[in-house]
Amino acid sequence: MKVFKHELHIDSEEKMIAITDIVRGDIEVSGIFDGVAVIMCPHTTAAITVSENTDPNVQHDMLYAFEKVFPRNDNEYLHEDGNSFAHIKSAAVGVSESLIIENGRLILGIWQDLYFCEFDGPRTRYFYVKIMEG
Amino acid sequence: MKVFKHELHIDSEEKMIAITDIVRGDIEVSGIFDGVAVIMCPHTTAAITVSENTDPNVQHDMLYAFEKVFPRNDNEYLHEDGNSFAHIKSAAVGVSESLIIENGRLILGIWQDLYFCEFDGPRTRYFYVKIMEG
Amino acid sequence: MKVFKHELHIDSEEKMIAITDIVRGDIEVSGIFDGVAVIMCPHTTAAITVSENTDPNVQHDMLYAFEKVFPRNDNEYLHEDGNSFAHIKSAAVGVSESLIIENGRLILGIWQDLYFCEFDGPRTRYFYVKIMEG
Repeated sequence: MKVFKHELHIDSEEKMIAITDIVRGDIEVSGIFDGVAVIMCPHTTAAITVSENTDPNVQHDMLYAFEKVFPRNDNEYLHEDGNSFAHIKSAAVGVSESLIIENGRLILGIWQDLYFCEFDGPRTRYFYVKIMEG
Repeated sequence: MKVFKHELHIDSEEKMIAITDIVRGDIEVSGIFDGVAVIMCPHTTAAITVSENTDPNVQHDMLYAFEKVFPRNDNEYLHEDGNSFAHIKSAAVGVSESLIIENGRLILGIWQDLYFCEFDGPRTRYFYVKIMEG
Repeated sequence: MKVFKHELHIDSEEKMIAITDIVRGDIEVSGIFDGVAVIMCPHTTAAITVSENTDPNVQHDMLYAFEKVFPRNDNEYLHEDGNSFAHIKSAAVGVSESLIIENGRLILGIWQDLYFCEFDGPRTRYFYVKIMEG
């Protein structure tokens, strides 16, 4: 089974973008009814996570909290590109997620969406989706 | 192979509950000897993680540290439900975990247990277990 | 398919060690061209993550930031072994990672490596690699 690759055009510095429907489309194309979907981003200043899907303020509060904890500016950072904060957020949140597929449907709570998290935009980004049958 | 679904009745605001034995039971029922178990919770204010299984103070210290870093009260939070802190902890810890099965046994270190983390209880909660053969 | 187990001799207190080439070797030995690799460490004071592979200052900044956020010393910690900070970092970063394999190659970004993170060394450590075909 081939790996799906998707492109995102992200227009701001930090943003969480719901990608659940894209993954659901891949599952439908795959024809797989039972298994696991692995979603992964090949970037070191972005991440993949699952979070609340109804109130956009939750995403605001999450990006705010991560910025407070891992701030943009810190005199102790050595990395000269100046984006250590984004590398750190990426590793803290994680670059992949594994979700369960049952009867052709992704198992998610009613309040959950899968998100691509941009921490160092604006950029063109990618993510991969692998559907495993089993 | 069907997906296992389990219910937890959580009686406090924050708690880490060992669910390793439940997952071991699912592996036994599945009859699968080699593969991967994906464990996932469908909630945006809870998480799944692996942590120390012997001294309950480790769980205390972990919940304490997450509360210090992502505090309950912060004037910058916009989400009106008042539980942004729990959404943030959920995304920081992660809602799923993938573990390896070998010869019918879950691979875990002797000090490790799999935990369901409640960040906004008390509530009735669920988690799913998918056993993939391979 | 057997599970691969690897040993690491870690000579310092905190360190991030690239293990990508070891996992690539396992994939080659497995003969599997398409699927998923699950990498997992059986320790409660270590973790597995994906991060930047070119400037070692990124690793310095990451370990620095985690130490600032989850400090070694805190009067509120109850765990008497004195390494609560390492248990917390382990759960925050996570002990496993799932990566996609396509045409016999691990999908990673050009700036990404897979890392074993030591938070309480020096120690001899282990990690497991499971290759799932699909």
